[in-house]
Amino acid sequence: MSGISNITKSNYKIAIIGLGYVGLPLLNLSTKYFNVVGYDKNPYRIDSLKKLKDYNKQIGISDLKKLNKKKIISSDINILKGCNIYIVTVPTPVNIRNQPDLKLVKNAFNTILKFLKKDDLIILESTVYPGATVEISKKIIEKNTNFILNKNFYLGYSPERINPGDKKNNIKNVTKVISASNKKSLNIVKNFYSTFIKNLHVAESIEIAESSKIIENIQRDVNIALINELTFLFKKMNIPMKQILEASRTKWNFLDFRPGLVGGHCIGIDPYYLAYQAKRIGAKSDLILAGRNINNLMINKVSSDIIKSIKKTKLSINAKILFLGLTFKENCPDFRNSKNIILFQSLLKKYKHIHAHDPYLNNSLKIEYKENILKKLTDLKQYDFIILAVKHNQYKTLYKKISDIPVYDMKYFFKNSSFYL
Amino acid sequence: MSGISNITKSNYKIAIIGLGYVGLPLLNLSTKYFNVVGYDKNPYRIDSLKKLKDYNKQIGISDLKKLNKKKIISSDINILKGCNIYIVTVPTPVNIRNQPDLKLVKNAFNTILKFLKKDDLIILESTVYPGATVEISKKIIEKNTNFILNKNFYLGYSPERINPGDKKNNIKNVTKVISASNKKSLNIVKNFYSTFIKNLHVAESIEIAESSKIIENIQRDVNIALINELTFLFKKMNIPMKQILEASRTKWNFLDFRPGLVGGHCIGIDPYYLAYQAKRIGAKSDLILAGRNINNLMINKVSSDIIKSIKKTKLSINAKILFLGLTFKENCPDFRNSKNIILFQSLLKKYKHIHAHDPYLNNSLKIEYKENILKKLTDLKQYDFIILAVKHNQYKTLYKKISDIPVYDMKYFFKNSSFYL
Repeated sequence: MSGISNITKSNYKIAIIGLGYVGLPLLNLSTKYFNVVGYDKNPYRIDSLKKLKDYNKQIGISDLKKLNKKKIISSDINILKGCNIYIVTVPTPVNIRNQPDLKLVKNAFNTILKFLKKDDLIILESTVYPGATVEISKKIIEKNTNFILNKNFYLGYSPERINPGDKKNNIKNVTKVISASNKKSLNIVKNFYSTFIKNLHVAESIEIAESSKIIENIQRDVNIALINELTFLFKKMNIPMKQILEASRTKWNFLDFRPGLVGGHCIGIDPYYLAYQAKRIGAKSDLILAGRNINNLMINKVSSDIIKSIKKTKLSINAKILFLGLTFKENCPDFRNSKNIILFQSLLKKYKHIHAHDPYLNNSLKIEYKENILKKLTDLKQYDFIILAVKHNQYKTLYKKISDIPVYDMKYFFKNSSFYL
Repeated sequence: MSGISNITKSNYKIAIIGLGYVGLPLLNLSTKYFNVVGYDKNPYRIDSLKKLKDYNKQIGISDLKKLNKKKIISSDINILKGCNIYIVTVPTPVNIRNQPDLKLVKNAFNTILKFLKKDDLIILESTVYPGATVEISKKIIEKNTNFILNKNFYLGYSPERINPGDKKNNIKNVTKVISASNKKSLNIVKNFYSTFIKNLHVAESIEIAESSKIIENIQRDVNIALINELTFLFKKMNIPMKQILEASRTKWNFLDFRPGLVGGHCIGIDPYYLAYQAKRIGAKSDLILAGRNINNLMINKVSSDIIKSIKKTKLSINAKILFLGLTFKENCPDFRNSKNIILFQSLLKKYKHIHAHDPYLNNSLKIEYKENILKKLTDLKQYDFIILAVKHNQYKTLYKKISDIPVYDMKYFFKNSSFYL
């Protein structure tokens, strides 16, 4: 045996690069079965994990204690020394022009470059456009070493399917798509993930796996965009979308999407990755971009609609307004790319007496809008108008206490709201 | 008691106008409980029903015998005499410029006009744009009589949810949305449908019911359009869509749409209805039309892709080609707006020796392309290339007999086809 075949299950030495929403749960789970270390270039993240604080609320204190005891997390790159499998789990955002920003993936590959030995394997979990995994590895590894893909080093791609705040669909029970640059490396990828994940789906190529991941989020984006387009179309006809959807949903195959702002780190981002690559090769992505465009315009449309509703209730710009929910999604502390924050900011320009509340608020946000952020929900009666932006469980029974106050309900959450999206 | 309250369950006299895919099953079911007659202006349809032939294959011979025995179907409008409830179940197609063609609904209302008495109720089941039911009734009934809506006559709207070829989701067990112009008429609509349909959903207005129906089909159209756009985007990247979808489908919330031609009488039509009304009121329908546009262009794209695949197999325009399936949908005899026929026609222009087969072919189609239509599938070995367009159950095991012949599989139906959409 020689080459990559030398990496057998017993001598896997795994590095996870990026300890965020994807990397930390993967580290936490895989360390129970393998020799794994975790690297994050952000010392603050490592610090807080060492202080047993996971701001993403994915990993409990007892598990964090175990990780610390093992001394396997660090912001010092030297922790990667001696590894033979590198798993990259870093964010892949877009830049200000909505183009793929692969800087963090490239940084990770450049970090790996410093330690990469002959026959090592790099697995990417981040969402990228089809072809990017091989493209980046060639640009960084092949260009800076005399290593050649599938001869001296190997690639795997296994897209993460982490759903923030979703406890039912978790890393263990969600089928994981895996792929690799050749049979031998696929075998290693399979051996690794199958140890702690119940169902794997082997994609026939890295490009198929990359494509499969990106279309999952595009499909959601377009479906929400359609409902958003319809919502404002029917608003113009004075037909309430909430009740239309209630009727449509009684059909066996109607898909239960709701109107709303599309934030977060995936659905609003991934379409740009595929559209970018489509443009590069001269393929069309009209529908993908039409959907994205609609969802992008939603903040303005919702903001105008809220202002219109406040006017309808004969309130002035001096009205006392309560804005409920700032995360991008309910019941999780994920503020990444949250359009609810931007909506709140835009309303803040118009209404002086607007307060926002979110049970998951962290310190950095609290400081930014200090005067307008509530730490606790008290004295609800003082408000003239309420905007429900996120359906956190904590807000579920709130409508009982505010029955006299008009609510603009962006989430169809309360029973008898005055205004719905 | 006076007015519409005089119509009690025992004296309903119902007329169903239009005995096609929607009207005939409704007649067949409701006649078991009510005094019902069925009118179709097409004497050939009535004739063939009297000869116990339902070309749509929805109603069996014993039921047709019962209908004939009761003498309740006719193409003579006088059968409508004495009715107090009129249910309109006629097609609502588009014209050559893809604008709503409501001629058949208007014809039906004009027919009703001749018999309409004070306090009668008209229920529309056809798909229309929001507002159309009231709009048409005002244009035809109020204009030509001294009747006023909700004073002298009443309206109901209850969209059909017939799914041709689907035995599981049938008229009895699918929830039916109902609505009416006021409370009293709603009561009559409810009493009627609840007698033979298990679950009703009461929409708060006729416009809500109209909207709910039209968005069901629009949602399907846009979702298929997205998969179609992605299919050709990935074809350009040489990444097989079939395998991408196999991977994506392993995610719990991925929606299992496939690429393909969108035909039939609903999905490819309804988006134009809503887009038309949106334009009239100055609302946007960009995504709806972007989807429609993609699906419209699919015939050309698929045709080119098939031609490319035939060339790849080194076959000339003299190749013997077999085209399997001409209906718009599998396992039902529905040829309405079938894009498979148009695809076949376009290939017929290029390839002389192309034969088409469909187990559901009726006489009119057989005559049109006489020489190129097979009545029976025999001597399969003679063909150089096969195109599978419709996944009729009859074709399921065919691939075993044609293992040497390259297949262009539009439906991901066979295991080892040479080419997939």
